[in-house]
Amino acid sequence: MTDSPEKLALIMGLDIPDFDRIGYYGADYGTMKPYHRIGNLLFLSGHVAQIGTEITHKGRLGQDLTTEQGYAAARQTGLNVLGGIKQAVGSLDHVKSIVRTLNFVVCTPDYEGAHKVSSGLSDLFVEVFGRERGLGGRATIGVMALAGGVCFETWATVELVDGCP
Amino acid sequence: MTDSPEKLALIMGLDIPDFDRIGYYGADYGTMKPYHRIGNLLFLSGHVAQIGTEITHKGRLGQDLTTEQGYAAARQTGLNVLGGIKQAVGSLDHVKSIVRTLNFVVCTPDYEGAHKVSSGLSDLFVEVFGRERGLGGRATIGVMALAGGVCFETWATVELVDGCP
Amino acid sequence: MTDSPEKLALIMGLDIPDFDRIGYYGADYGTMKPYHRIGNLLFLSGHVAQIGTEITHKGRLGQDLTTEQGYAAARQTGLNVLGGIKQAVGSLDHVKSIVRTLNFVVCTPDYEGAHKVSSGLSDLFVEVFGRERGLGGRATIGVMALAGGVCFETWATVELVDGCP
Repeated sequence: MTDSPEKLALIMGLDIPDFDRIGYYGADYGTMKPYHRIGNLLFLSGHVAQIGTEITHKGRLGQDLTTEQGYAAARQTGLNVLGGIKQAVGSLDHVKSIVRTLNFVVCTPDYEGAHKVSSGLSDLFVEVFGRERGLGGRATIGVMALAGGVCFETWATVELVDGCP
Repeated sequence: MTDSPEKLALIMGLDIPDFDRIGYYGADYGTMKPYHRIGNLLFLSGHVAQIGTEITHKGRLGQDLTTEQGYAAARQTGLNVLGGIKQAVGSLDHVKSIVRTLNFVVCTPDYEGAHKVSSGLSDLFVEVFGRERGLGGRATIGVMALAGGVCFETWATVELVDGCP
Repeated sequence: MTDSPEKLALIMGLDIPDFDRIGYYGADYGTMKPYHRIGNLLFLSGHVAQIGTEITHKGRLGQDLTTEQGYAAARQTGLNVLGGIKQAVGSLDHVKSIVRTLNFVVCTPDYEGAHKVSSGLSDLFVEVFGRERGLGGRATIGVMALAGGVCFETWATVELVDGCP
């Protein structure tokens, strides 16, 4: 009936942060802004698994966290990306496509499942935007550490619809 | 006589995968698509050292693999990037430039040669596209782990010629 | 009176490398070029904490280097980015915005301050370009190793003013 991502997000009951009200949490991490837009291209800063000022998933995959917990961290990160998009352009309905995400997972040397973690993020995008708009390019890297001990971070690029204000 | 990358690749006997026929291997890694195109910009998903469903180079530089083996892994990854370009736009001849690649090498803490590994990828691009089109921007990062234990991954951006279908 | 980044850099006495004269140091790292430009978008190759052929900050945050030393490494890296911009377009005054930087910090598994290191880079950009133009998007990743043992690397994207030659 409808494929409005905003309506879908409402029906799904997603808890998307309002960064205009609560402030972009990334500003606490240093000298940076939440996004940069050039025409229809939206370049977001890093987003992590955090609610307000609280990191939701700290630790290391393959040691402190299961792949399922990592997946949940990536999904929480996805909610922050959605909040970042809304902060930048006001509505999820202005998204034409998820261009690409580069994803970082804190893990042990032997952990081979970093890609499974990232699907927590990309599955959410497909649920909200549908497959055509929400399925983006992707890569995932297992890393040493992230700011404040969070286990997951994403670096997302989004394409906006023509005429997006 | 000719500087057609397609002809060069044929003469060189490069084994470039046909993802339209065998399917993009990245889909086995999670919820993602192989590329996203906006106008003349082609954003590829992560490519790794893999043939079909088989990873060709597993392990860690500075421990299990020599720099020469890493270089070979990067070259194999480059073949997959060429396959990704062909899947996206049909022909290597539509490439105007390699914009930039971000490269990830699984290594030990003491390994200082990650950059030498990446030249396996970027040397291939210069061989196929020539120096003007094939020499791209680059950075290389030594990381903890990659999906499935592969030792090398690249994240490539490509510029297409005007009028590319 | 003036907000010319070139004048500010002069007043600040910044030691910005002239890559046209001394050559882009990245070429010593392998098959790569210093940047790629498409219209008003400037994609830089990786820049590190280096002066001439000498890495200025080797080692690992949380073990060999303090956060303050890492911050200094990031600032030195920022000077190389400024040199890279000048090599590409001749003048810092052609910069419209810092789009985004992706930053890599070599650190221990327990180090949680990678984001503080990156502010050495992004603070410099704000000093030189002012807040409106110089404050970019950002993400920071703690990694295993970087080329030659340097502790910091950045991957920057810059927006140029309309009509930039």
